[in-house]
Amino acid sequence: MHELGVVYRTIERADPATADALGALGAATVHEAMGRVGLLKPFMRPIYPGAQVSGTAVTVLLQPGDNWMMHVVAEQIRPGDIVVAAVTAECTDGYFGDLLATSFQARGARALVIEAGVRDVKTLQAMHFPVWSKYISAKGCIKATLGSVNIPVVCAGMLVHPGDVIVADDDGVVCVPRAMAAATLEAARKREANEGAKREKFASGVLGLDLYQMRGALQAAGLRYID
Amino acid sequence: MHELGVVYRTIERADPATADALGALGAATVHEAMGRVGLLKPFMRPIYPGAQVSGTAVTVLLQPGDNWMMHVVAEQIRPGDIVVAAVTAECTDGYFGDLLATSFQARGARALVIEAGVRDVKTLQAMHFPVWSKYISAKGCIKATLGSVNIPVVCAGMLVHPGDVIVADDDGVVCVPRAMAAATLEAARKREANEGAKREKFASGVLGLDLYQMRGALQAAGLRYID
Amino acid sequence: MHELGVVYRTIERADPATADALGALGAATVHEAMGRVGLLKPFMRPIYPGAQVSGTAVTVLLQPGDNWMMHVVAEQIRPGDIVVAAVTAECTDGYFGDLLATSFQARGARALVIEAGVRDVKTLQAMHFPVWSKYISAKGCIKATLGSVNIPVVCAGMLVHPGDVIVADDDGVVCVPRAMAAATLEAARKREANEGAKREKFASGVLGLDLYQMRGALQAAGLRYID
Amino acid sequence: MHELGVVYRTIERADPATADALGALGAATVHEAMGRVGLLKPFMRPIYPGAQVSGTAVTVLLQPGDNWMMHVVAEQIRPGDIVVAAVTAECTDGYFGDLLATSFQARGARALVIEAGVRDVKTLQAMHFPVWSKYISAKGCIKATLGSVNIPVVCAGMLVHPGDVIVADDDGVVCVPRAMAAATLEAARKREANEGAKREKFASGVLGLDLYQMRGALQAAGLRYID
Amino acid sequence: MHELGVVYRTIERADPATADALGALGAATVHEAMGRVGLLKPFMRPIYPGAQVSGTAVTVLLQPGDNWMMHVVAEQIRPGDIVVAAVTAECTDGYFGDLLATSFQARGARALVIEAGVRDVKTLQAMHFPVWSKYISAKGCIKATLGSVNIPVVCAGMLVHPGDVIVADDDGVVCVPRAMAAATLEAARKREANEGAKREKFASGVLGLDLYQMRGALQAAGLRYID
Amino acid sequence: MHELGVVYRTIERADPATADALGALGAATVHEAMGRVGLLKPFMRPIYPGAQVSGTAVTVLLQPGDNWMMHVVAEQIRPGDIVVAAVTAECTDGYFGDLLATSFQARGARALVIEAGVRDVKTLQAMHFPVWSKYISAKGCIKATLGSVNIPVVCAGMLVHPGDVIVADDDGVVCVPRAMAAATLEAARKREANEGAKREKFASGVLGLDLYQMRGALQAAGLRYID
Repeated sequence: MHELGVVYRTIERADPATADALGALGAATVHEAMGRVGLLKPFMRPIYPGAQVSGTAVTVLLQPGDNWMMHVVAEQIRPGDIVVAAVTAECTDGYFGDLLATSFQARGARALVIEAGVRDVKTLQAMHFPVWSKYISAKGCIKATLGSVNIPVVCAGMLVHPGDVIVADDDGVVCVPRAMAAATLEAARKREANEGAKREKFASGVLGLDLYQMRGALQAAGLRYID
Repeated sequence: MHELGVVYRTIERADPATADALGALGAATVHEAMGRVGLLKPFMRPIYPGAQVSGTAVTVLLQPGDNWMMHVVAEQIRPGDIVVAAVTAECTDGYFGDLLATSFQARGARALVIEAGVRDVKTLQAMHFPVWSKYISAKGCIKATLGSVNIPVVCAGMLVHPGDVIVADDDGVVCVPRAMAAATLEAARKREANEGAKREKFASGVLGLDLYQMRGALQAAGLRYID
Repeated sequence: MHELGVVYRTIERADPATADALGALGAATVHEAMGRVGLLKPFMRPIYPGAQVSGTAVTVLLQPGDNWMMHVVAEQIRPGDIVVAAVTAECTDGYFGDLLATSFQARGARALVIEAGVRDVKTLQAMHFPVWSKYISAKGCIKATLGSVNIPVVCAGMLVHPGDVIVADDDGVVCVPRAMAAATLEAARKREANEGAKREKFASGVLGLDLYQMRGALQAAGLRYID
Repeated sequence: MHELGVVYRTIERADPATADALGALGAATVHEAMGRVGLLKPFMRPIYPGAQVSGTAVTVLLQPGDNWMMHVVAEQIRPGDIVVAAVTAECTDGYFGDLLATSFQARGARALVIEAGVRDVKTLQAMHFPVWSKYISAKGCIKATLGSVNIPVVCAGMLVHPGDVIVADDDGVVCVPRAMAAATLEAARKREANEGAKREKFASGVLGLDLYQMRGALQAAGLRYID
Repeated sequence: MHELGVVYRTIERADPATADALGALGAATVHEAMGRVGLLKPFMRPIYPGAQVSGTAVTVLLQPGDNWMMHVVAEQIRPGDIVVAAVTAECTDGYFGDLLATSFQARGARALVIEAGVRDVKTLQAMHFPVWSKYISAKGCIKATLGSVNIPVVCAGMLVHPGDVIVADDDGVVCVPRAMAAATLEAARKREANEGAKREKFASGVLGLDLYQMRGALQAAGLRYID
Repeated sequence: MHELGVVYRTIERADPATADALGALGAATVHEAMGRVGLLKPFMRPIYPGAQVSGTAVTVLLQPGDNWMMHVVAEQIRPGDIVVAAVTAECTDGYFGDLLATSFQARGARALVIEAGVRDVKTLQAMHFPVWSKYISAKGCIKATLGSVNIPVVCAGMLVHPGDVIVADDDGVVCVPRAMAAATLEAARKREANEGAKREKFASGVLGLDLYQMRGALQAAGLRYID
């Protein structure tokens, strides 16, 4: 958060198989499995619908209107990574377009998560390179001031360490700390396993009131029915 | 608005045929037919494009971060209903996902209108269960505090009584009070009937200035043309 | 900006071939070619994805909740124009729907750019008449107060003169002053010509650090690498 | 909400003594006493700090950019009233300034609550005429389109009936329905009576954990202390 | 708007006596006198209450996060000027603090109007140097990229030419084009002259309905009174 | 960020003398001294003007609409602390009022920094207990769900560890990590020491262009002067 002008080349990434498996479960299930923490603010939206990805975070701290460090972070990308970008102040500018996306994709990045703007969204969709951002803007950036790479950053209100697992889909973006990845996967799978049976019951007309045995607690809380 | 902890089981719904017919006309036409009242604030957006529905309102008042009453309202749904959900304070949380949607759909609900967040949007689109919401968020809710069901609620700035007609499409969400439904339908149909002829004239190059005979009024108001 | 109740019938439009050629290059490239000026604020979003247009601006200044002047501006449209609409105060209302779109399209307009609301978005998409707007709202407008046509207007923070070139796509909306159109086209084409080669290099794994020879400047700025 | 062009001259006001007594207790205490309902959205802010008022609501529904009905509602004001103004669509314009304030004050109004803009704020402060509004804007309004007076309105997300009690201070604006005014006053006074003793205990260093005997419940919920 | 890297040293300022006289009338009256145009967006707020100023505009176009040009514009200030600052993209940073304020004040500037952030607000208040801004932020700026001085700029949605008159108070900021200054002053004075008599009438209980003879027009528009 | 239901009783606080000395320098100077990092988002505003404080952070993570943990954190306060409160999702509710303020003040807390709402602002001002918050709201909270105390939290976009130094005034809120406190103080003092001389030069009419010797760099960047 506070260190400028530094690039950490060696980071410990979460286990790739765990990261991949978390992605298949989706942001909402993973968020529940973590105990409802880890979600980036919901203003982070995909630039096109339907993408669902996961990967290990490489992080970058940018200056407002300046995307110099995006080129620096590119070198630190390994296959399976997702770049998570924070800015030191609110900025709508388009920090990232089709050329950087080509570079990131060539390095093996799966997505970008950025609390700022991006551009070339039509081309990014054609390239199948998803981005979750706060803004879309055609405005480009200068290259004048240092930020940092692979330090802990706060992106959209959530602390992200390099190597954490990022899960993103149409519901938003979740960060799973590396140390919690395995346990979260296990919890998410349990949750998912239960959902199929529940869905069938709901589809057959069973109410949550009965499935979850809520009627007693509601009555105890004082709920009154009036005809 | 002010009564907490109560569920009204008996509500008087607008005539279903009228409700259905209003849906076919769309939110903009219905809103005009009502004299330009009844529109929920335009921050209410569909979670996927293209849906157009109408139905009779069952209402629910929720607490921030708490979706307990969503299970209570499910029991009050009848085929042809649209659930209209208000929250006692601003909240971005995802109150509704694929399980509740399965339950609502099994009970016959056609849509959800909620001044808060929803999740599982990809699945909801696959289920053809449209939602108009203020937010999308992967964050789930607790079940701890009572709200109410089928009391009048204010959703996105508009008062909605149980049994009112809701019309929603890509242009937004309109509430037609039950007592005005028949007259609104008649007015909307008249409006619609006139539009075909107008559209043809516009398509042929006739100007609104001439079609609506505006030139005199504009001149009287002082409009000056300069070459 | 300041003259109300006037319609300028004679405006000097940018060269149509130049306007067309700028559209093919897209908003981001044109914006760069202008030296990073001319972009409307990024809250201006297309009402449906995928449209990319350019044309010459005819401008209209509207009053809040009043679309009378939209009929006045319709008469001033010539084939190849894009209507740029400003309002004297923030307004979410739907100033424009399928009937006006039919009229504008019949006159040869290619698009509407409006710092306010529009409606009938599903029909507009079916008509292939793109709109970049700040809001979507089913609410219609009255016709009571004069604005102006073909005066300079500020739309979404950018000054637009009648006859300027407008370029709009999924990345946003750019205004190219008439006098800068030819030079901007030349600069944009040069930029575009370079991008193909760069893209290939990025795709082959070359880093921007090397392609743009940034390593020296970064080191000079004090960037430190830590293993 | 839905009736335009009508003025109700006869409304039933809450008991004035009750309305006055509620004002002395303040918005937060009254809101608690109602069971945490009735609060207008917190974007409603006083135009100057320090005012604390209560009174009976006379309501007005306005059109965007049009303050014609403000003159109509003035005639319906009686001493002890607070004018509550809603607009049919978002509008920042200044609907109210020093002249209307002089008129309202002469009629006996104590304040204005408006989900739109006001102006002449320095003069209003000098006049001791408080306003809670969403915006401040120097822009005036036209007088062209009818709204209504003394119909139920939704102001800042809250339903207000004519004759309800309004309580407003630096914490915001609360609406107490007429039928709940007496009971709310009683509950608020009880609450207030307890607060003095609590405040003394807190001031002496007693913790809420002990005063409210929360330790057991926290432990039961699983709270862990780590040294 | 579009020219970067240029400083115009010679500008034609509005007549100082006219500029001063407009300030005494305040933003709302001047805005009305101009026919309700010229107002900057109402998100522009004074950093402390009570200031009321006017002066001639010197303009500056800034880059996001970069206040280099603030030092360039300082040299162009003459006594009686107000600096109007626009940024090429949304930025919350504090472009201006007590040192620059000391410099501006020494050059004779009366105020700053900036669609971005400022800091040192307590000191600025002590110095009696008012600022109207969109944000307050402790974050400082770099000095790396050129903007321009004394070109026409769009600040908070309004076009401002160097030499125009700026009027600012607690109600907001109005720009009076130099060529309209004298006529606007005359119109504003007429308006002001009428207000005293009106205020007395309102204070004595006369209604706007009668003072402005609105009853006939309201009846013609269909207003119904119900007892 | 991710650990729920835990209270750390033992934290290492920054040196109190250093914390105090940083407060006297103010948020803007401290932020500069840190190299322009550490600032909370500028939507964090004081509930009344003029307060300037510093202290050591005790942190609390809250649930939306639930202030149970505010009572838990009260016990962990030591004289000289500032409570920094984050919420797991956006919430406008008033988490804190005069009773909790009395308790916090009795424990020795100097201020509260909360990315949510507070109430009783008039009383808090009378008590001289400053709060920097995102919202003001009369709405109270339930006590149902665990958060945590003295874990690292993200408040308004900034990571805050327990024991860090918080500096807050009218310009905003800055977090100085404990390990950087001494060096930051030294840098801030140097900066402050230089400012007096600069202020005198600015006051005497010297320009920043000359004081900072910017003319050469501006010329090199291509700045052109036009008479």
